[in-house]
Order: sequence, then structure tokens, then C-alpha cells
Amino acid sequence: MKILHTADWHLGRYLHGVSLLADQAHVLAQLVALARAEAVDVVVVAGDVYDRAQPAADAVALLDEVLAQLVVDAGIPVVLVAGNHDSAERIAFAGRICRERGLILRGTLDDLSPFVLADAHGEVAIWPLPYVEPVFARALPGGEAVDDHASALVHVLARLRSQPCGARRSLLVGHAFVAGGSESESERPLSVGGSGAVGADLFAGFDYVALGHLHRPQQVGAPNIRYAGSLLKYSFAEAGHSKSVSLVEFDATGLASVRELSLTPRHDLRIIRGRFADLLNHPDPQAPRDDYLCAELSDREPVLEAMARLRAVYPNLLELRFSALDSTGSGAAASGDHRRQRPEDLFAAFYREVRGEEIGDAQRRVFADALATVQAGDGADSGRVAS
Amino acid sequence: MKILHTADWHLGRYLHGVSLLADQAHVLAQLVALARAEAVDVVVVAGDVYDRAQPAADAVALLDEVLAQLVVDAGIPVVLVAGNHDSAERIAFAGRICRERGLILRGTLDDLSPFVLADAHGEVAIWPLPYVEPVFARALPGGEAVDDHASALVHVLARLRSQPCGARRSLLVGHAFVAGGSESESERPLSVGGSGAVGADLFAGFDYVALGHLHRPQQVGAPNIRYAGSLLKYSFAEAGHSKSVSLVEFDATGLASVRELSLTPRHDLRIIRGRFADLLNHPDPQAPRDDYLCAELSDREPVLEAMARLRAVYPNLLELRFSALDSTGSGAAASGDHRRQRPEDLFAAFYREVRGEEIGDAQRRVFADALATVQAGDGADSGRVAS
Repeated sequence: MKILHTADWHLGRYLHGVSLLADQAHVLAQLVALARAEAVDVVVVAGDVYDRAQPAADAVALLDEVLAQLVVDAGIPVVLVAGNHDSAERIAFAGRICRERGLILRGTLDDLSPFVLADAHGEVAIWPLPYVEPVFARALPGGEAVDDHASALVHVLARLRSQPCGARRSLLVGHAFVAGGSESESERPLSVGGSGAVGADLFAGFDYVALGHLHRPQQVGAPNIRYAGSLLKYSFAEAGHSKSVSLVEFDATGLASVRELSLTPRHDLRIIRGRFADLLNHPDPQAPRDDYLCAELSDREPVLEAMARLRAVYPNLLELRFSALDSTGSGAAASGDHRRQRPEDLFAAFYREVRGEEIGDAQRRVFADALATVQAGDGADSGRVAS
Repeated sequence: MKILHTADWHLGRYLHGVSLLADQAHVLAQLVALARAEAVDVVVVAGDVYDRAQPAADAVALLDEVLAQLVVDAGIPVVLVAGNHDSAERIAFAGRICRERGLILRGTLDDLSPFVLADAHGEVAIWPLPYVEPVFARALPGGEAVDDHASALVHVLARLRSQPCGARRSLLVGHAFVAGGSESESERPLSVGGSGAVGADLFAGFDYVALGHLHRPQQVGAPNIRYAGSLLKYSFAEAGHSKSVSLVEFDATGLASVRELSLTPRHDLRIIRGRFADLLNHPDPQAPRDDYLCAELSDREPVLEAMARLRAVYPNLLELRFSALDSTGSGAAASGDHRRQRPEDLFAAFYREVRGEEIGDAQRRVFADALATVQAGDGADSGRVAS
């Protein structure tokens, strides 16, 4: 049996004010083509289908179109669960009506029954488990002791495992942060002030655990517990990622293999580095200039209207960083109680932090003069205010 | 063939800050029971299913539940179109997937094909026509000339009628304001500064036109062009309405009969009238005190904290009116250019308007004194500002 595992579509997401909907439609067309070409038996979507609880109408229309292409046109069942970005009730809409047609939509926790598919070797149970918000797990029968993400998942998984099911092989579709997984910048933390992480051991017993939440494709804890990763790079921290969907194959006894099938974005998301003048006058002839770009400038002086001027060459330049001007040190120089340090020493540390070199005598003199002027003016001001 | 015609559910609506969701669930349970008891062949919902384009999650969950009860549990197909309150794309979600299961959801105008049902006498075509926003009709092929609601509907109906269909009998499910229909206060006008009304003649040729938009059950133009009316009374202007769903029966040749089946609300919505003291001390023993009420007080003097005091007796009192103190006249007395009238005459007209009787000499003197004081003070103020 072939299962296509995907997650974290975040339909309707914007990147620095740019709608990514056309980019999402572009890779979803590849996903549908891959599902058809590989003749998969089911597509599982492990949450964060939309980017927000109340998605825009065009994001709804895109999901509708993709699901109809898979379920109606290609005849491939889809199992889709809500993630922490999704609204449980909105994802669950029409779930009972769509189920017999081969679309399993799960948002809330009131139905934890499996979707069962069969091949020559027997049945495979596909268990849809939407994102478990602790407050909703606590509201379930016997959930009084739930007080965090781990205890919530323990409780809901126990209820899920108690469902009658005769299938020997099983796959869980879930949305959670499993400890040890590597975060990008574009995931929304599950807990305020914490990661909401749970242990991989909670998922013992399933032949494969198809996860969503982390945006880098990766396994956590064991080769059969995996994140498919997001549909697109959703932050410049993901510039080095390669995005894909996972083709999971089951044989007679369970998991046989996993292959990552690459998705090719409409626009890549990259970081370009160098001096302003070089990036402006000598763009890389090999790289598409309309990719979504972050320019990291190594110039030591600020550059006037750098963004606007670079956009004439790179129309989708979205972010600008000055690597030499940004504070990249540890901040150690300014640590401690700065009110006990002399202004001259504080400025010397600041200079070292920003420029990466020691302050010279000329700069020391300029600072001392400026400080004296400010302090004299400050005294005069104070006198006036106190009068 | 039996068709249950309903419309204007407005799920998620609030009335004076009170959520009506439990009231809506209450009458929808009756609707499902009526559909089962009458063994209807199809339920048609003619738009304004939700009260707003982005409905709250609990409104989505209620619609999901009602549709599943009808389509899955009772095996009754449902044809549902978007109204002007609904989001076309959100209503259309999963439409292609649900269709074969017997749920026809139409929001956008790109699919105008009929849903065909058969009985012993042959086929009946049910044409779902979502609310036609002129801008979307104009965007359709050949729609360049569309410039108002009437021309938009003419264009879309021509496209709809050009669809292949062999059924002899037909029913249109639409959402529009047909000229001559009687408005309540709770419909949202289709056009800014206008009614957006269209002629009933546009609908010629259909055996029955199941309309939504107007909240009072009524026929417009002909007995076979009808509004089912809203699920509940959504304004005090509807206090005298009786809400219902319409049971439409087709015989071998077309429309045979229409019956209005009453819905009994969880709380009625009524206007109570009288003096404050009487309403407070002698509530009608026959009428449920927890109905949604508007109290029209006939007292000639303002009553201190009338709302709070009456709510001790009528917990769902939502609105208070002072019929004797409100201006109920034609406003004729104050017409014309009031800047050319003497203050004494203006006040006499105002007194007559508010009290319904002529001003007396005592009141004239009080007003003259007050006016003199104000005018003296006004002069002093002006002098000070100008200095």
C-alpha cells in the first residue's frame, strides 16, 4: 500500500506582505500529479492546512479544488486533520457527509474512529488525530488529570486505541511537536512560553506516524515517526531546506520504505550575500532574479534606499539585513549592570560589537566631545525644569 | 414529489447582543423532524444560511450537524445556495465531493447545472442559483452589459437555462429581492442606496421558485414564486409574523400545492405595551416572561432605570421604547427653513410633536425665561472668546 504523507500547507499564508497562494497552487498541482503518477492508495494531510482559523475565501477555494481533484477526479481518498493553525469545527465541516465519498475530515476530538483501507495483505487502519489542545482533551470523559500537551496526548491516544479495529497494520496521522525535532522560524509555538513538546514514545505501536507541525522534513525518535515538512519554505530560516512530500510504502508486515519526493517551487526562497554594489551590478546569471530573496549586505556603511534600488534588479526582494552593521556578537560586552560602567567604556564595547574592531583614539575623542556637550545641555535642561 | 422549502437561517445571528444559536438549533430540530415526518424528497435552502461571510465556529458546527442529520441519517438530499450574507467560496466548499452523497452546495456561479430527482411521473430538475452579485455576473462570458441586479439575473438565468436538461418539471432555488415583496427590518439591502429589486417575470417558466432574502413568508407576483421566510423573527418589526417552512408538492404536471408548516420558537419575540408600573406589577400570566421582548411604555415621563427594573420580571427584555415621548408625528411642524422661524414657535411645534397637545402659557413662560438666560450667557461667552 502506498501512502502520500504531507502536512503544513498553510494555505493563505503571506510572506512579508506577499500572498503565497499562487505558489501554493503551483506545488499542490505537483502533489496531485505525484499522487496520480505513483498511484497512491491514500493521501494523508497532517494539519495546518490553512494558515489561520478563519481562512480567506481564496484559500478555501484552493483547498476545495485540490481535494476535488484528488477525491473525485483521481479517486484517491484523503485523510485530513486540523493542526494548531486550523479551526477544529471549520475543518470538520461536512465530515460525515464526505466520509463515504473518501474524504475524511477531522477537526474535533469527538470521533476518533479509524479509516480502514485494504490491500492484498489485509487491512490498514489510518487513524486521524487532529491537533490536541489540552483544554479540549481535559473536557473529554476521564480527562480531569490532563494538564499539558503530553498528558493530553496520552489521554486522547488511549481513547483512540480503545476503538474497535481488526486491522493488523496501522498508521497515525497527527499534529504535534515531538521532542527532539528541529524547529524552523515559521512554526507557531503550541504553548505560550513553552514548546508543548511530547515524547516520541507516546506513538509506540503504530507502523508509521505521519506528523505535521515542524516545517523541516525529518524523523524524530525512530525512522517510522516522521514529519513530511511544509509545502513551501515559509521563512528565510528555511532557505537551506528542500521541501517534499513523503511516499510511504507498507508491505505485508508494516512499514517497508519512505521516499521523499521533491516539490519544485514557483519561486525559490533564498538568501543572497555580498556588498550592495556587487549584488546590484553583478547579479548571479544562473539564479532566477524573481525568487523570494533576503539580501544580506556586508557593507560597513548604511546604504541609501538599498531596498528600493535592489528591487529594480530583484523584484521579489523581501528582506534586507546588514550583516556587518547588525549586532552579531554575544552581547557579553554590554552585560552586567551597565549603570555601573563609565560611558566611555560602554561606548567602546558598543563600537567593538558593531564594527568588530577596537575603538581608535580619534573615535574616543569624538565621543568624549559629544558626551561633554550632551552632559552640559542636560544640566541646563534640568535646571530649567526644576525652576 | 415533496420539497421542503426553507431559507434565511442566519446561523450565528445575535439579537441585541444575545446569541440566537440555541434558538436556531431548536427550530432546526423541528425542521429535520418535519422533513422526516412528511417524508420529503429534498430540502432546499435558499440562501443566507449563515449571518455573515466568516461565520463563528459554533455556527459552522450547527450547520454541519443539521446537514448530516438530513443527508446521512435521514437520507434526504439537500440543495443549499449562498445568499448575500454568505461567502460564495465558503458555502461552495466540498461541493463536488458532497454532490454524489446528496448534498448540493452552490456559492459561486461557475456551476449552474441542475440536480435532478425522479418520481413515478418522471424527472424534476432542481436548479440551484446562488445570490448573484452584479460584479460576478459581469465577469461571466457575455456579461459585459450587466450593470444592476436585474441585468445580472437576466444574464445568469440565460446561462442557467442553456444547460442541457431533459426534465419536464423544474424548481429554481434562488436568493433575490423580487419587486413587490414586503421587507422586514432584518434584511440587509442588496444595493447601497437601493433595494436591488428584480421583476418576478424573470422567473417565468419554472414550476416553482423557492426564494430566500425576505423574512416574511409570502408569494410575489404569482402563487408559484415564493419566499419561505426566515427561521426565526430577527427583528421586532417581525413580532407579528408567523415563521414556517413551506411544503411544496409537485404532481405529474408541476406544482400541485404549497403548505406552510409552522415552526415553534424556543423563545417568542414579542412587543409588550403599557405603562411601566402595569408591566412591572401585572405581567400577563399567560405569556412566557422569558420571551425576547421589546417594551413600549406609554408613560409621559421618563422612568428611572426602566430597563433594569423590568428585566427583574422579563429576563430577556431586549429593547425599550417610550411611545409617548418618542417623536411619532410627521415632522411637518419642523419642516421648512427652521433658521427663519422664531425660537418660541419652534419650541411650540416641538412641544406639540412630543406631547401631542398644544403648549400652555405656563410652559411658554418657562421657555422664554430659559431662552433669555441662554442668550445672555451666549453673548458673554462670545465676548470672552473674542477678547
